[in-house]
Amino acid sequence: MRTLFCIAAVLAGPAATAAQTARSMTEIIAASTASDWREIDPQNTLYLDLRQGRIVIELAPQFAPRHAENIRALAREHFFDGQSINRVQDNFVVQWGDAESRQPLKDAKRTIPAEFTRIALGAQFSALPDADAYAPQTGFADGFPAARDLVRNTVWPVHCYAMVGAGRDDSVDSGGGLELYAVIGHAPRQLDRNITIVGRVIQGMELLSALPRGPAPAGFYEKPEQRISIVQVRLASEVPAAERETFEAMRTDTAIFTALVESRRNRTEDWYKVQAGHIDVCNVPLPVRIRKK
Amino acid sequence: MRTLFCIAAVLAGPAATAAQTARSMTEIIAASTASDWREIDPQNTLYLDLRQGRIVIELAPQFAPRHAENIRALAREHFFDGQSINRVQDNFVVQWGDAESRQPLKDAKRTIPAEFTRIALGAQFSALPDADAYAPQTGFADGFPAARDLVRNTVWPVHCYAMVGAGRDDSVDSGGGLELYAVIGHAPRQLDRNITIVGRVIQGMELLSALPRGPAPAGFYEKPEQRISIVQVRLASEVPAAERETFEAMRTDTAIFTALVESRRNRTEDWYKVQAGHIDVCNVPLPVRIRKK
Repeated sequence: MRTLFCIAAVLAGPAATAAQTARSMTEIIAASTASDWREIDPQNTLYLDLRQGRIVIELAPQFAPRHAENIRALAREHFFDGQSINRVQDNFVVQWGDAESRQPLKDAKRTIPAEFTRIALGAQFSALPDADAYAPQTGFADGFPAARDLVRNTVWPVHCYAMVGAGRDDSVDSGGGLELYAVIGHAPRQLDRNITIVGRVIQGMELLSALPRGPAPAGFYEKPEQRISIVQVRLASEVPAAERETFEAMRTDTAIFTALVESRRNRTEDWYKVQAGHIDVCNVPLPVRIRKK
Repeated sequence: MRTLFCIAAVLAGPAATAAQTARSMTEIIAASTASDWREIDPQNTLYLDLRQGRIVIELAPQFAPRHAENIRALAREHFFDGQSINRVQDNFVVQWGDAESRQPLKDAKRTIPAEFTRIALGAQFSALPDADAYAPQTGFADGFPAARDLVRNTVWPVHCYAMVGAGRDDSVDSGGGLELYAVIGHAPRQLDRNITIVGRVIQGMELLSALPRGPAPAGFYEKPEQRISIVQVRLASEVPAAERETFEAMRTDTAIFTALVESRRNRTEDWYKVQAGHIDVCNVPLPVRIRKK
């Protein structure tokens, strides 16, 4: 069997092994030390459990503190339990939550103010050297793919594959995290600064991306019985320690991360005949691993 | 139920309806005339039939004439019948063909010379005004998303979602179309000019993209029984006229296509609060429709 361009594999999550990754990236990761990784706070770790398996989401309070707080409240209230995935639009998003908007709330709010951008000044930002169609500059801020505009003094996370956001209606402040979506296709960057990104999928993305596409317009499932049931959504911090893993994400403000980016800007494997010399922010792998117990 | 940002829907294929598309794009398409569309030659139309349904691929002899000819020969020899999809790597590619490289050939060749780029001079090219991370310029050539380098006088199709290419080993001329792949994730533009693009999926992409991801490294299925069977692959021109559809693609060298691009660079729907003012070549929809009989 031809392996073809399997060397183009990216480290997609904690299950990735050395064999899945380009040697140079593997070598870079192998050379990392503990300080190159950050532990993901269980307070910012959401378990979305389907019958198909567990999806793990890292919340992003550094960009959307109010949304993170509201999603934590929703999880504590078991708001999502028994709800469903209602929409799977090919090359766009999977969307889940309270399809009928009928679920009562306790501490959580139904809508909260938008959190599209934050102040850039003074914020750590590892800039990419390459052009971007959508923003003056792209790079990484606090572990997330991001863009910034130094003229407007703003920074914002960008809609790469696996990013998670909070749906809203036409009104800017009409979202709150009761309906969430994850990107399953080419980065829909036109959404940037138009909707609140609340996190990213760090494990189980392949479960969301392989769901059957909805037949109705915009990928909605036509009938309630077509929807994919959600067993439960829990904050990792609410789960007994024995039942959770400790996730670590590679920091994006380190020399080793810069080396990783460079190894992807110019691929050195024998298979590549033309080096790109460039990279799109959404093609940079963001390694995640599970700490050994 | 919140419709959220379903107005961000793109016209994904011939099944798309007015309700799925932004009004402005719908209006633009509604205003098109017959001369804004080109019929896709049945000689360049490949049916990939799975038990799950039919996938339709437009071949691209304008970029890869030798590969198109070889794939036509393979289809005429029923080379792919009974073979399988062997690899589904999340956020990368689906790959199918002769996993064991044992299938005998008649007129088709096992390997043919690479067709990564072609001469740009004199070729029609509808350039986008926006920056690109990977190429000096991107746009559309002969209906396909493409890039060009006027210094090197080359033009090449780019690896957007749904593009189809011919796998190869490390040697440049080791491919031939016996194993094909389709992009199912964020555009892996590092592959551009490194592998021969032979076409694009114009119908049934949602069948390929929702296949279960392979558990082995690079998304290969671990066991032969996990592979997805291919019922048959046929050229439309080899199928009785009563059993095929006539596909039409929107031309990319027209005023109406330029208007469509602009409607996506700056979205005017109420939902959008910040207009991007830019677009990535892989975010431009390429409308396809089926001619009424």
